[in-house]
Amino acid sequence: MNAGNKAGIPDIEDILLAQARIRRQVRHTPVLNDPSLDEAMGCTLYCKCENLQRSGAFKFRGASNTIARLSEDGTKGDVATHSSGNHGAALALAARLDGRIAHVVMPENSSRIKIEAVKGYGGQVYFCAPTNESRAEELDKLVLSGYIPVHPYDNADIIAGQGTAALELEQEVPTLEQIITPLGGGGLVSGTAIASRSWGASVYAVEPEGAADTLASLRQGKIIQDFEPDTIADGLRAIVGVRNFRVIRDEVRQVLTVSDDEIRSAMSLYWQKMKILIEPSAATVIAAVRKNPAIFGGKKVGAIISGGNIHPADWLELTAER
Amino acid sequence: MNAGNKAGIPDIEDILLAQARIRRQVRHTPVLNDPSLDEAMGCTLYCKCENLQRSGAFKFRGASNTIARLSEDGTKGDVATHSSGNHGAALALAARLDGRIAHVVMPENSSRIKIEAVKGYGGQVYFCAPTNESRAEELDKLVLSGYIPVHPYDNADIIAGQGTAALELEQEVPTLEQIITPLGGGGLVSGTAIASRSWGASVYAVEPEGAADTLASLRQGKIIQDFEPDTIADGLRAIVGVRNFRVIRDEVRQVLTVSDDEIRSAMSLYWQKMKILIEPSAATVIAAVRKNPAIFGGKKVGAIISGGNIHPADWLELTAER
Repeated sequence: MNAGNKAGIPDIEDILLAQARIRRQVRHTPVLNDPSLDEAMGCTLYCKCENLQRSGAFKFRGASNTIARLSEDGTKGDVATHSSGNHGAALALAARLDGRIAHVVMPENSSRIKIEAVKGYGGQVYFCAPTNESRAEELDKLVLSGYIPVHPYDNADIIAGQGTAALELEQEVPTLEQIITPLGGGGLVSGTAIASRSWGASVYAVEPEGAADTLASLRQGKIIQDFEPDTIADGLRAIVGVRNFRVIRDEVRQVLTVSDDEIRSAMSLYWQKMKILIEPSAATVIAAVRKNPAIFGGKKVGAIISGGNIHPADWLELTAER
Repeated sequence: MNAGNKAGIPDIEDILLAQARIRRQVRHTPVLNDPSLDEAMGCTLYCKCENLQRSGAFKFRGASNTIARLSEDGTKGDVATHSSGNHGAALALAARLDGRIAHVVMPENSSRIKIEAVKGYGGQVYFCAPTNESRAEELDKLVLSGYIPVHPYDNADIIAGQGTAALELEQEVPTLEQIITPLGGGGLVSGTAIASRSWGASVYAVEPEGAADTLASLRQGKIIQDFEPDTIADGLRAIVGVRNFRVIRDEVRQVLTVSDDEIRSAMSLYWQKMKILIEPSAATVIAAVRKNPAIFGGKKVGAIISGGNIHPADWLELTAER
């Protein structure tokens, strides 16, 4: 059922097909460059504004592609997933647009705005303890009751959909030397790495220091499962997926880390220069580029600004602006 | 020195020339449509995101065009203006990019973010009492000391520059039936009306109820000068200009009004649907379209989202979200 090769990993053709499949539904988000941001960053930064994507995050791309593939295959019925928020909201919206309902397991400490978004798009929310075991258990129950599971990132259709953001960016700015994305479960960065194969930009990923499970897994040569994330970047607390890990290990140039304070400061900077509020997960790429002039200085860098789902009150609390 | 016809009013050719003149400096801002916003609004809304323009507002278009014309004419020296904020910041930036300094008279009750923006772009700020007389007096002093005056809206080069926002929007969505803009001094709406002549969209303008001097002037057939504005839309407190009034009287289909509460509610709605913070002046167009289904219902409407220069803390205070 999945796209891609035998191992369930999509290839560039799957991403091109996904682009064609979802283009009427997904917003072709703007790419913004700002001279005054560039000055602060020390490079030429092309921001792919997935914070302006429908549902407020890139996740709508993967969700739309997955639902569209179910429809193509004639598979009827509701879907189920677990999510700290953005994937849940995106799947709820994509499902509703196709006449389905999404059943979403969410950690009880998910941000209010993300819970409200899932409900607002017609999704059913099921709370669980904020651990990976509890998520999996709750999801198993839903799948046993007959809903179609849609893994938030360890899934070829999701990966292919997420890859369309980088594909659009590279089609618009073909001379990019580097692309950087946040790294949680690895859906976005694995899709980005596959999409970038034919363009030649080096791909970088960023984890919060408090959720650097992928970096630890890379060092051990296998995925570490027992990891307690501790970071303000609520979208990046997941453990890297199997398919995602393989792509990252083989095709991502380097996994960087940033501290929560660097994330806060990047959120402030982005607002000051761009007048756009971004969520902590999205700010990791700004923080990482700023922190690593030896890598990015003077380069043409594409940054996937992954999402903007943060309430202004929460943004103020995190950044302590004023 | 000014573009345009004998009365100092630009025509469509001046706007096309302005577009070519400023295109390397001005951001070609994205046009966003969102199905869920459309549902709430009862029409198909194309939002021209001038909140994402450099300096955070459309004003950078007029300022850039004016400075570029000075350079073309070989006119050297610093410039001076009065502004509640966005024009001042835009002129400061455009001047700095051309090696000049902008001297900006600002009412002492201007929002902090706007004062900081003028200073941040290298402008010199001169505070005055929040009255039109005090503004004019202070500006006169600066002009007497030798600076070149740049009126914020009653100026053909400014009007031609502001018209490029609507021109871009109509080039991108040529089937628009209506265009709506906020109305303060009238620079944006007069440029929009002139730009729209060859496209056929009807042009509407919106004033806050507490700053509806243009509507009162239209009813009296002449510009009312003694008017004390009272509105949260700090960008729309100016008295309409002479050139602007003529264009509005002859070419704008209708001037609508909205209350401050309708503005607040539109700011919340826009954030909920678009995850973008807009300033009160920009929210007037959302409020007006929502309030007038008899005019806009079912239509293809272009809305110039004029600016996003509001601190998240001020946004929260105004909208009382949470």
